[in-house]
Amino acid sequence: ATAAGAGADTDVAASSSKSIYMISDGTGWTAEHSVSAALGQFEHCLVDRGCPVQTHLFSGIDDVEPLMEIVKQAAKEGAMVVYTLADPSMAEAAKQACKLWGLPSTDILGPITEAIASHLRVSPSGLPRGAPGRNIPLSDEYFRRIEAIEFTIKQDDGALPQNLHKADIILAGVSRTGKTPLSIYLAQKGYKVANVPIVMGVDLPKTLFQVDPEKVFGLTINPLVLQTIRRARAKTLGFTTEVGNINYSEMSYVRRELEFAGRIFSQNPVWPVIEVTGKAIEETAAVVLRLYQDRKHRCTMPRISKRY
Amino acid sequence: ATAAGAGADTDVAASSSKSIYMISDGTGWTAEHSVSAALGQFEHCLVDRGCPVQTHLFSGIDDVEPLMEIVKQAAKEGAMVVYTLADPSMAEAAKQACKLWGLPSTDILGPITEAIASHLRVSPSGLPRGAPGRNIPLSDEYFRRIEAIEFTIKQDDGALPQNLHKADIILAGVSRTGKTPLSIYLAQKGYKVANVPIVMGVDLPKTLFQVDPEKVFGLTINPLVLQTIRRARAKTLGFTTEVGNINYSEMSYVRRELEFAGRIFSQNPVWPVIEVTGKAIEETAAVVLRLYQDRKHRCTMPRISKRY
Ligand SMILES: Nc1ncnc2c1ncn2[C@@H]1O[C@H](COP(=O)(O)O)[C@@H](O)[C@H]1O
Ligand SMILES: Nc1ncnc2c1ncn2[C@@H]1O[C@H](COP(=O)(O)O)[C@@H](O)[C@H]1O
Ligand SMILES: [Mg+2]
Ligand SMILES: [Mg+2]
Repeated sequence: ATAAGAGADTDVAASSSKSIYMISDGTGWTAEHSVSAALGQFEHCLVDRGCPVQTHLFSGIDDVEPLMEIVKQAAKEGAMVVYTLADPSMAEAAKQACKLWGLPSTDILGPITEAIASHLRVSPSGLPRGAPGRNIPLSDEYFRRIEAIEFTIKQDDGALPQNLHKADIILAGVSRTGKTPLSIYLAQKGYKVANVPIVMGVDLPKTLFQVDPEKVFGLTINPLVLQTIRRARAKTLGFTTEVGNINYSEMSYVRRELEFAGRIFSQNPVWPVIEVTGKAIEETAAVVLRLYQDRKHRCTMPRISKRY
Repeated sequence: ATAAGAGADTDVAASSSKSIYMISDGTGWTAEHSVSAALGQFEHCLVDRGCPVQTHLFSGIDDVEPLMEIVKQAAKEGAMVVYTLADPSMAEAAKQACKLWGLPSTDILGPITEAIASHLRVSPSGLPRGAPGRNIPLSDEYFRRIEAIEFTIKQDDGALPQNLHKADIILAGVSRTGKTPLSIYLAQKGYKVANVPIVMGVDLPKTLFQVDPEKVFGLTINPLVLQTIRRARAKTLGFTTEVGNINYSEMSYVRRELEFAGRIFSQNPVWPVIEVTGKAIEETAAVVLRLYQDRKHRCTMPRISKRY
């Protein structure tokens, strides 16, 4: 039921759907991320199951006037309002305006920000990201993240096997186990990732067995689900009639290729094998990084640690 | 002050730094995203400025026993605790355990989830993502997102100009304006993105002028900042002695190349020109998508809408 074309966006509010207005003085991605996780709790009744929800994200709202306009519009639509506004007077204005119009509203970051402030015994700046004067110099992290993304793109789909030793993480799996999107997701988090396709009857690059095996991860998937994904893929690419790929989504081929991969994994017992069936990309990423950190730091409780 | 290597991770808690424990029954990315945005309010005193913070992310915690272990460890470190736990009894257990140990704690999604529940008049499922039995079928959005990522990788750096018409969004700018990471960020959100480098004296692909100009975005940047980024880049690539690139980060060249780009932009007045100086990738992405949606839907208030 999402709109055709890019980004699942649509402007046509189905009259039956409930609206959520999200307002930020920054990008709005924090509000969007939080709302979308919270909506996971209502999956049993979302689109096509009785209670469709329409979200509207307003970013860069750093002035009271547009803020009031948006709340007014929310009132017209009977929407609920969530906001992230760094300036306490803006946050207060949003709260009061919603109260006035009788709209439910939630300040998403207010409580955590207050808790952190007491914990650090430091007052929050009250300045939105992108506020004038907040000229943060380009950090090492900025450069590392960009380098990781560029590395990962160049290494996609088994390219440049001579560079596998430069990767932080190497993913191996048969076609359509989600290696590419997973690589990219991890790259965004600052890891240099290489992915190596496993194709039945094709030798893997020698370098894969020369690198530290602790950084290699095998991906596996249920054959039926893989077949579904491959069929969708074949349709997109217009594969169906192409001779070379006739087997690609055929069940016996899918099974045998997964067995072929399985044998390689058992010959390399240090590689963890991760089941991706039914997992979203970010879920598999969480599993990979937990194992990765665990192997690197050998904590009693697996965790991902970071300094700010 | 971040650890060398991947992902800015480190396990050595500087004795002076304050800890934040983040606990999720899912991936933990929502908690991480929220905490990192909230920490933006304390940038004036973070690392190297007096109050370093160490975060620890514990994902996949769907049982009381490990939850209690983590809270106990948090107590040892004098950490504060934030959590996202879908099962109300787990959330309550976290809250009570923190109270018992005297630790400040914040439930990140509880308030929004409750607000959404009253708005929709539906109870939350209480089931964490990845809970057994929650077998969500692969959605159109899943496939679209993967297709967008694969398209975007293939189109990187001006590749395949004959496919520009298939892109949702085209980014044009000189080297090191952040086209690649921006493209990837947008691709993750489901948009097919192509990026086209502008290089002084090199003709742009003809197809760029044949596509709908409303989907083309120019990127520009302050010359001094660009020079800094290019110098860092040249160092990474070991460019400095290479004759072909001797000018790449030289000020007069940087200026002239930006002017060259500026002339192209003024010849194509429909293309918005976006200033990326001092902006994080996700901030530029927010600007691009706001304009993109605005042009597509011509709302009175620019917004990004989505159905769930
Ligand atoms: N680096 C930062 N510095 C200051 N405030 C920030 C930073 N990052 C995010 N924020 C604030 O956190 C909230 C969420 O940000 P965003 O995800 O960009 O909407 C907004 O109120 C932003 O102003
Ligand atoms: N699709 C979903 N279905 C149910 N719960 C979800 C979903 N996505 C996220 N959550 C919950 O939202 C919280 C944050 O998720 P995460 O970002 O994965 O840590 C956790 O309590 C998850 O269990
Ligand atoms: Mg791939
Ligand atoms: Mg590039």
